[in-house]
Parts: sequence; C-alpha cells; structure tokens
Amino acid sequence: MINWSNLDTLTSYRKLLSLKGQVSLSAVLDAARVASYEVPMAAGLSYNYAAKEVNEQILSVLQELAGEQELVAKYRALLDGEVINTGEGRKVLHQLARGQLGKDVVHEGKNLRSFYEGERAKIAEFADKVHSGKVTGSKGDRFATVVQIGIGGSDLGPRAMYLALNEWAVKSGVKKMDAKFISNVDPDDATAVVASCELSKTLFILVSKSGTTQETLANELFVKDVLKKAGLDPARHMIAVTSETSPLANNPGYLASFYMDDFIGGRYSTSSAVGGAVLSLAFGPEAFAEFLAGGAAADKTALEGDIRKNPALLDALIGVYERNVLGYPATAILPYSQALSRFPAHLQQADMESNGKRVNRSGEAVGYATGPVIFGEPGTNGQHSFYQLLHQGTDIVPLQFVGFVESQAGLDVTVDGSTSQKKLCANLVAQIVAFARGKSDSNPNKHFPGGRPSSLIRGKSLTPAALGALLAHFENKIMFQGFVWNLNSFDQEGVQLGKVLTKQVLSGDMDGTLKAYASFFGL
Amino acid sequence: MINWSNLDTLTSYRKLLSLKGQVSLSAVLDAARVASYEVPMAAGLSYNYAAKEVNEQILSVLQELAGEQELVAKYRALLDGEVINTGEGRKVLHQLARGQLGKDVVHEGKNLRSFYEGERAKIAEFADKVHSGKVTGSKGDRFATVVQIGIGGSDLGPRAMYLALNEWAVKSGVKKMDAKFISNVDPDDATAVVASCELSKTLFILVSKSGTTQETLANELFVKDVLKKAGLDPARHMIAVTSETSPLANNPGYLASFYMDDFIGGRYSTSSAVGGAVLSLAFGPEAFAEFLAGGAAADKTALEGDIRKNPALLDALIGVYERNVLGYPATAILPYSQALSRFPAHLQQADMESNGKRVNRSGEAVGYATGPVIFGEPGTNGQHSFYQLLHQGTDIVPLQFVGFVESQAGLDVTVDGSTSQKKLCANLVAQIVAFARGKSDSNPNKHFPGGRPSSLIRGKSLTPAALGALLAHFENKIMFQGFVWNLNSFDQEGVQLGKVLTKQVLSGDMDGTLKAYASFFGL
Repeated sequence: MINWSNLDTLTSYRKLLSLKGQVSLSAVLDAARVASYEVPMAAGLSYNYAAKEVNEQILSVLQELAGEQELVAKYRALLDGEVINTGEGRKVLHQLARGQLGKDVVHEGKNLRSFYEGERAKIAEFADKVHSGKVTGSKGDRFATVVQIGIGGSDLGPRAMYLALNEWAVKSGVKKMDAKFISNVDPDDATAVVASCELSKTLFILVSKSGTTQETLANELFVKDVLKKAGLDPARHMIAVTSETSPLANNPGYLASFYMDDFIGGRYSTSSAVGGAVLSLAFGPEAFAEFLAGGAAADKTALEGDIRKNPALLDALIGVYERNVLGYPATAILPYSQALSRFPAHLQQADMESNGKRVNRSGEAVGYATGPVIFGEPGTNGQHSFYQLLHQGTDIVPLQFVGFVESQAGLDVTVDGSTSQKKLCANLVAQIVAFARGKSDSNPNKHFPGGRPSSLIRGKSLTPAALGALLAHFENKIMFQGFVWNLNSFDQEGVQLGKVLTKQVLSGDMDGTLKAYASFFGL
Repeated sequence: MINWSNLDTLTSYRKLLSLKGQVSLSAVLDAARVASYEVPMAAGLSYNYAAKEVNEQILSVLQELAGEQELVAKYRALLDGEVINTGEGRKVLHQLARGQLGKDVVHEGKNLRSFYEGERAKIAEFADKVHSGKVTGSKGDRFATVVQIGIGGSDLGPRAMYLALNEWAVKSGVKKMDAKFISNVDPDDATAVVASCELSKTLFILVSKSGTTQETLANELFVKDVLKKAGLDPARHMIAVTSETSPLANNPGYLASFYMDDFIGGRYSTSSAVGGAVLSLAFGPEAFAEFLAGGAAADKTALEGDIRKNPALLDALIGVYERNVLGYPATAILPYSQALSRFPAHLQQADMESNGKRVNRSGEAVGYATGPVIFGEPGTNGQHSFYQLLHQGTDIVPLQFVGFVESQAGLDVTVDGSTSQKKLCANLVAQIVAFARGKSDSNPNKHFPGGRPSSLIRGKSLTPAALGALLAHFENKIMFQGFVWNLNSFDQEGVQLGKVLTKQVLSGDMDGTLKAYASFFGL
C-alpha cells in the first residue's frame, strides 16, 4: 500500500531543510567532481550535476526522501495502470505508449498497449501511402506539406519535436514532408500558415482529444473554407487525431482518423498519435519508432532505486532542494542546439501545467512552494539576451544546459581556428563554469558572485532516440516532482475558469466588470 | 542637480512598504474601476491598470516616489544627452533615433539626431533601389528575400518587429521582401535558413556594432562560403550595419554600409539602422518611419510628471510595488496577437539585460530585488500551457496583457456565432477577470484563489505606429525602473565573463575544471 504524504510531513524533508547553504559551488567545483557527479542516461546521453549545490550528505538525504516518499513505487503503480490522476479518475499512460514496463494495462477489456501500438501501425501504413503517392490530394497531387491544427499539448510538443529533428532528417535522407502548425485562435495565425502552403499538396491534421476545443474547431473551419475556395475537397485534405468517443471519430469528413484516449494528457501526448501522425508523415514511421524507443529506454532507467543511477529522479530531487530549501522561484532551460529552439516552450507547458498547483492530491492546500516558472531560449542566443540577469541579477535561477558534440546538418565553417560547432560547445562549457565560480573584480560592475547552479545533459548528436530520451527524462522528472509535492500532476483544472468566462462574454451574459472590459473590444 | 539615490533610502519607499496587501482585487474590481484606471497612450493605445493591486493611497505614494527619485528629470537629462550610461561613459540615445525631445545632442562636433536621420535616409534610398531593381544580385536577379545576420539585440528586436508587421504589410500592399534571420553560432541555424532561400535573389545584412561579434562573423563566413559555391559574388549580396569605427565600416566587401553608434545599446537598437535596414527592405521606408513616429509619440508621453497621465512611468512604478513590496519574482508578457509571438522574447532581453543587476550606478551592491524574470507566449496559446500555474500555482506572477480589436489580415470565419477574432478578444477579457477575481468552489481542485494582478494594453489594430508606441512604452518602463532601482540599465557587464572563458576553451588555455567539461565535447 502506497502512502501519499505531503512533503512537509517527511522526516527526510526536515533533515534537508537543515542542510541549506552547505555547498559553495566556487569552492567545490573541480575536475574530480565533474567526472564523478555524472549519471548515464538512455540513448547515450549523460546527466552531469557537478555544478549543482549538493554534496554527499545532501544526496544521501535526497535518497532517503526518495525512499520515504516512495517515489519509484509510485512510478511503478503508474506503470501498472493504477488511477494516478485521481481528480479525473484516470490512469496515466504516456509511458505505455512508448513501451511496456509494468503489468498489462487493460481498460474495459481493451489492452491499452495493444491499442497504442495498433494506432501507431495504422499511422505508419497511412504515412507510407501518402509518401508513395497512393493517397493524394483531391486534384491528384502528391502531398508535400502537412499542417497540424491543434493547441497546447497538440501543438507545443509535436512542433518542438519536428523542429528538433528536421535538419537530422534532411541530412539522413529520410525527410518526407514539411510540417507546419496552426494553433492560435487569432485568425492571423491560420492566415499566415495557409498563405505559405501550396494547398493542392497540403494535408491537414486536426488534433483535438475531445473534439470540442474552441480554437481548433475554429481553425478547422477556417482551413476548410480556404480549401473549398481553392476548389479542393476538404474531406480529402484532412485527417483527424482524436478520442474514439469524440464527434470527430469515424467521421467521413476526414481521409482517416487515428485515436488517442483520456489516459494520455495533452502535454504528454507527443508519444501518442498526436505526435505520431505529424512526425511519421514528416520523417517516416521509423524515425518516430526510434523516438519512442529512446523514450522507453529513459522510462526504464527511471525505475532505478538508487538516485545516483536514476537521472530523472536525481534531477527531480535536486530541483526540489533548490525550490523548497534554497527558495529559487524559476528554472531556465538552455539548449545549445538551434534544433531545440522550441523545446523550452514545450517544457514550460509540461512542467507548469503539471505542477503549477496549490492543493495536494486530496484537495488540501499545501504549505510549500510547488512548480517553478520555466523559461528558456537556445544558446548562444540567450547569452546575448537574458544571461545578464542570470549572472548578476539579485535572484538566483537554476539552469539546465543541454548540448551535443556534433551538429545535425554537419555543414560548418572554420573561423579563427575553430568551427562554429566547437564555438557553440566552448560557449556552453564556459557558461557552466562562469555561473558556478563567478569572478572577483575590483570593478563591482565586472564582479560576478558565482554560486549559480546548473546541470548539463549532453550527447553525441541529436537523433530521434536521443530526443525521445531527452523528452522522457523531463516528463519523468516532472512526474517525480509531482510525487514529492504530493500533487496530481495530470489534471489541469486551472484552465477551466477562463473557458467559462469566455462563454459568458461570447453569449453576452456578462456582469458589469466583464462588460466593461468586453466593451474595449466591441464585444 | 539630479540626486542618484538607492530605492531604500527614499522616504516614499518606506511609506510604500507600509501599504503592503491593502488591495483585494476580487473585492475592488468593478466596472467603475475598469473605466477610471485607464491612461491613454500614444498611437491610439490605452493602458488599463484596473486589475492591479493598487488604490488611490498607493498611487499617491507612487507619485511621491516618482518625485523623490526625480524620475522624469532623469529622463530629461537622458534626452538632453547627459552620460547616463556611466559605467561605459556613454550617452543613451535610442529615443533620439525616433525624434528629438530635448536639447541638441552633439558629440565631437556631430549632431547625433542628424546622424541618425542621415543613416535612415541612406537606408531609404538603398531600399528603394533594391525594390525598383536598380540594385540586384550578382546574376542580375531582383532581391526577393533579406536575411539578417546578427545576435542578441541585432536579432530579437528586428525579428519580433518583422513578425509583428508582416501580415499588416501583406494586407496593406506594402510588403516588399521576405525577411529571415540567422543568429545562433550553432551551424544548423545558418544551414536551415540558407537552405530555405533562393540565393541569387537573397540579400544578407550583417549586423554587428563592434564588428567583432563571434557568432555573427562565423555566420558571415558560413554564408559567404555558400554564396561562392553557388557562383554568386558575396560582395554584391551583403550589406553591413555597424559602427563607423568597426572593421566592417567602409569595406568594399559589402554592397553598402549603414551606421549606428555606441549611444544606442543593442537591445534598444531596433529604432536605429539595426532595425531600419531590414524593416525598410521588407516593408518599405515609410512603414519604418511610421514605426519610429509611434515610438516618438510614446517617448513624449513619458515626459508627463503626473503618473496617471504617463503610462510608462505608471507601469514602471506598479512593477516596482509588485517586485519590492509584494515580492513577486517574475512577470509574464501575454500578447493576444499571433503577430507578437516573439515580442515577449524581445522584452525578455530588453528587461532582463537592462535591469538584471545587483550593483547600483556607483557600483555598490543594492539591498533590494531588481529586474524580475520575464517570459511569455501569445494568447490563446499560453492558456493551454503555463496558465495553469498562473491561476493555481503557489507563486503569484503579475501579467501584462496586450490585445487589439481587429486582426491584421482581416480574414476570418464565424463558428458558433462568433468570429475567431472575437473569440480571441473574449478569451483575453475573460482571463483578466478570472485571474483577478478567481472563483470559489467546494471542489478544491476547481477553486481559484484569484488576486492575480494584470494590466492591459489595447488598441484598434497592430499598425507600425502602434507597434512603435508599444515598444517605446516597454523601453521607457524599463528605463524608469532602472532609475527607481538606481541601476545603470544601459551596460551589460554580465555577459563578459563567459566570453573570456570561451576564449580559454578555444585556445586550450584551460584550468582543470574547464578541461573536464571541455573534454565532454572533444574540445
């Protein structure tokens, strides 16, 4: 029987609080520590935490906390199909979409691993038909572009992963189609995307689990209007990704429909048909399968009980130490890889929507800080932007660096004796040390206090498997932090109130305050 | 004589601290307050602060603070050409690039307003030649695409403004050229951009004030290599924007050179030739002139002594109240306009690089919080992402909404009785009220505590003038906050240490720790 306890009831947490401020990074960071504070991850990645404000004693209390809060046992229960999303009475199965690590998960007689695999096989078959020209547009043109219409989890994850693998796919010769994305209800979003497409060669993917998402349905109609005006048959230019119970399911208005279910939340749905359709169409089903395999390998590593062999668990626990003991309110995600330009935006959703909560699993307000603000941009761009505050601001912001030895495309140029890729990596390395150690200077403007913690995830190159492992690492980190904080990380009730009030505005059934604001916009 | 004083030495600040927590937003927010807590801005915009945690008493102390800290007098001194950037011994003249509001500013015999206007005229003349086909690529093709090579301030602002005006330009019939941007030293960035261009029709703009920016010079060589391999003459496909003393100036390797100077910092340089070249080429010089005129009008409004008539000053002071009295560590920028998708990333730089500092103008460590973390994404996208934390997280994050009555392109679709544009605005209005008032619910998961403050900047549509005013508003807000905190907002010493260590890595002259990290990347 698993115990669900608040963080501040734990003995290990009280111990942890007494260990605040033990570590001076500038004093402890040396080559030996860099070599030893390192954990292998899946798919050839590594997690290095030498520049985190921890030591052997803190790590040992974090290990105790992992045990006392039964973090791996809770993860096992999730894998075995227990109803972890209690608020909505749902299982949590995004890991199952990548591979099976626990018991068979059966719901209403249906084996869900088989269901996810079956949908993937259907998508692969459909993608092959599109690529071979067996399925074409309504004027007989081969499809060259795929446009995903979706918002939130149906947009950020798939978009970030598409951008992450595009140059890899071109270089590897597996690039099949360009992908674009329409998300915002602002009609200028759809206008711009549609204008950039050759419509007779464009396949749209409508993604909405419920089939009722306001933005997505509005954009569907927008696109169908444009297709009709171009003399094209919308039913032959659009597929749907939805749940089997949605109004979009089995609908002759779509060329094909692929299914997800309520056990995979939007922000975790890249591993389901939501990411599967667009990524398989863009890069081929094999690339998507490799992506999932990388994620599944990371999911397996996350079962390790020893926190020093479990990078997601360790990352989660160090983050809790930073948030709840050291009191840092934000975390920056800093990938030194242009391909990961939208990865921070995806993690912003994954993390802030999962753990941005003030009540525990039982609905009681918690007395400690939960999910931090997450933000980030790729390096070296960020260095010329917000790093000033990170180095010399009055608040400390923990940093998560990501970097790869090789670029994806392999094109490069040597200037002043080094390639751009080497410059990129040199900057990354330099920043870690600069943040941790700082630098004394008699000119106070040029003085760097140091003591700014960071971790580094690194690999040889950003392949589908590495990307899958990277994504799963962060998903599992978020899951473990949710367990530590005793939250339900898998619902998102905080988005509902806005929807209710929006309906009031659109229906005209407003109180005075709403009306006063609405009048500004002629509503 | 102006007094430069730390915030915590001010009588008004001590008064302000005693006014913490006076305002319950859910109790005070009503139609009358929405109507009265409103200030007209330049270019037809308005700033509404009804949903901020202020009242008449707090506003009156903020007014005292503005007087005691001589905020407008400091701004006047800046406009008159005083050396406000003391650390670097420089004037601060980005407002002068938009218009002249103070005395003539002369440096070494040169009238700087005339200099900025002269460069703008040179750019306009060159852009006209490109548009008319008098200047072509080396194979005689008309230029259709312009690619800006620059990083930080040479990238984020111009990129954000280009995206902000693109649909407007298409709709208005003034769109001349597509613009793209290469910034990251990651060679995959340049690879992807160059692959998307028809090179014989592409004009590159090299932007580096010093002419020594590592990333930009590497990308210049990358592009020149590609041009040569395509049989094109790089000297006829590239212009430079730089300072007159840089190695890039008067260089026959460029088709033309346009100049900026040290008195306009990178993050404020969109109003200079840095933004002027790319925006004039993309949308015509008239659009850029309108953008500057909108900014100049906002700069004029920022001279108002009455904080309730000076939106930038008021916004700055309320932000200080939130940061230093209420203790909120971050601010989210939430434009309900897809066109402003990268505006938050630009403000992230403008704000965090300006005010992310721990020492005052005299180099003494300050004892209060300065610049907050800035992040944001466009609405309604963000609603399906990080808004969960904003509504129900354990920290309060002040919000800055931006919205417009009309879309830019004007294409729209009616679904369920409303257009997408109306849905967009309805969502914006609903969120303000939802954040401020919250909602009681017996189910604690569905309970919203409310009390989450926001402001709203709104206008009829996002035109060049409105965009210029919007940008200048935030620039002036940042300037006033820097004055309040007694910072030098116009240097960025915090980016230097990383550069020094990067050179050590690339030259092999490393200590053991750097070497240990560098070995991970084969350096």
